[in-house]
Amino acid sequence: MTEDDAARHREKMQKRKAVQDAEVAGKTVEKGLLMVHTGSGKGKSTAAFGLALRMLGRGRPVGVVQFIKGAWSTGERGPLEALSVPPWPGLEWHSMGEGFTWETQDRDRDVAAARRAWEKVLELMARPGLGLLVLDELCIALRYDYLPVEEVVAALVARPATLHVVVTGRNAPPALVEAADLVTEMKLVKHHFSAGVKAQEGIEF
Amino acid sequence: MTEDDAARHREKMQKRKAVQDAEVAGKTVEKGLLMVHTGSGKGKSTAAFGLALRMLGRGRPVGVVQFIKGAWSTGERGPLEALSVPPWPGLEWHSMGEGFTWETQDRDRDVAAARRAWEKVLELMARPGLGLLVLDELCIALRYDYLPVEEVVAALVARPATLHVVVTGRNAPPALVEAADLVTEMKLVKHHFSAGVKAQEGIEF
Repeated sequence: MTEDDAARHREKMQKRKAVQDAEVAGKTVEKGLLMVHTGSGKGKSTAAFGLALRMLGRGRPVGVVQFIKGAWSTGERGPLEALSVPPWPGLEWHSMGEGFTWETQDRDRDVAAARRAWEKVLELMARPGLGLLVLDELCIALRYDYLPVEEVVAALVARPATLHVVVTGRNAPPALVEAADLVTEMKLVKHHFSAGVKAQEGIEF
Repeated sequence: MTEDDAARHREKMQKRKAVQDAEVAGKTVEKGLLMVHTGSGKGKSTAAFGLALRMLGRGRPVGVVQFIKGAWSTGERGPLEALSVPPWPGLEWHSMGEGFTWETQDRDRDVAAARRAWEKVLELMARPGLGLLVLDELCIALRYDYLPVEEVVAALVARPATLHVVVTGRNAPPALVEAADLVTEMKLVKHHFSAGVKAQEGIEF
């Protein structure tokens, strides 16, 4: 790069930095966010557990309630268990689901499990100082009408001012999207399952 | 739910389970995947670090190379450092970037930093037993032509058969998407920055 080119690049980037700095300075509100990870792509729960990791690193405790998946059987278990004890601020994990609806084959049981999970959420929301609450696959429980959307959204909106909540699952209901601060759709562009590749340890579970 | 309804539900779910089981049984290939997290939404890097957590939990070491961001300053640092020592399989983190291009304001320096980062990637790819390699913001380095796309894609395609690689960043180049096994677009549906909310500890960093 010639000296002239370098100078032009520097000038352009100085302007860009000024715009960027002004943008950051204009944002002043701090609040607990209601976040939703939805869509049919991968990464909805994985990104939520990534947030849990980040929040633990910032010294605030984290709660996790799983609405569909049952017993802990994923790779996160060990590392997150290790981060559940001092000096870490604490992580509390509740797997309250009993599996997907085609596994339980019993709708009344599914509804009862979702209700128990929801009661655990209300208990955790009342916990002083909690930094982040991960509500894994709550969208699925709402989608199958295991819980009334209005009741759930009203309680999430009334959360403590400093509590961040992340809700995952396909088909986020419109009322939840409406109430949320941040909604990300994980969109499937290309998937190896369609090429006959199976779910692998450390990646899918 | 009446007994008839319950029986109908059960029958429907049994059929669904049979379909599901057959689908799973049809997938037999095991291989290290080339994954891409792209799009303008949140969660690209966060989900990649979530995968790192999962892979560590499965007992295989993880490497991270950051192409743009400089010094570790995010919440993941502490927890992932704690998971970098025994009994954990080990995590090696290299922040090789010097910040965004409007911060460095020096293109030659950006190109040199990307080249150093890429050399670190080649070194890690040759490391026997590595389970996952996170190439954070590599798409940005490709987008600004800090590195030639063909060279990068060719090396990624030639990776060891059991090594999973996840590449993050906006604007994934078509040649990378073409070569990948799994591509997810994190799509912004709604963002709190547009409501004046600032980046907050434990969430954005």
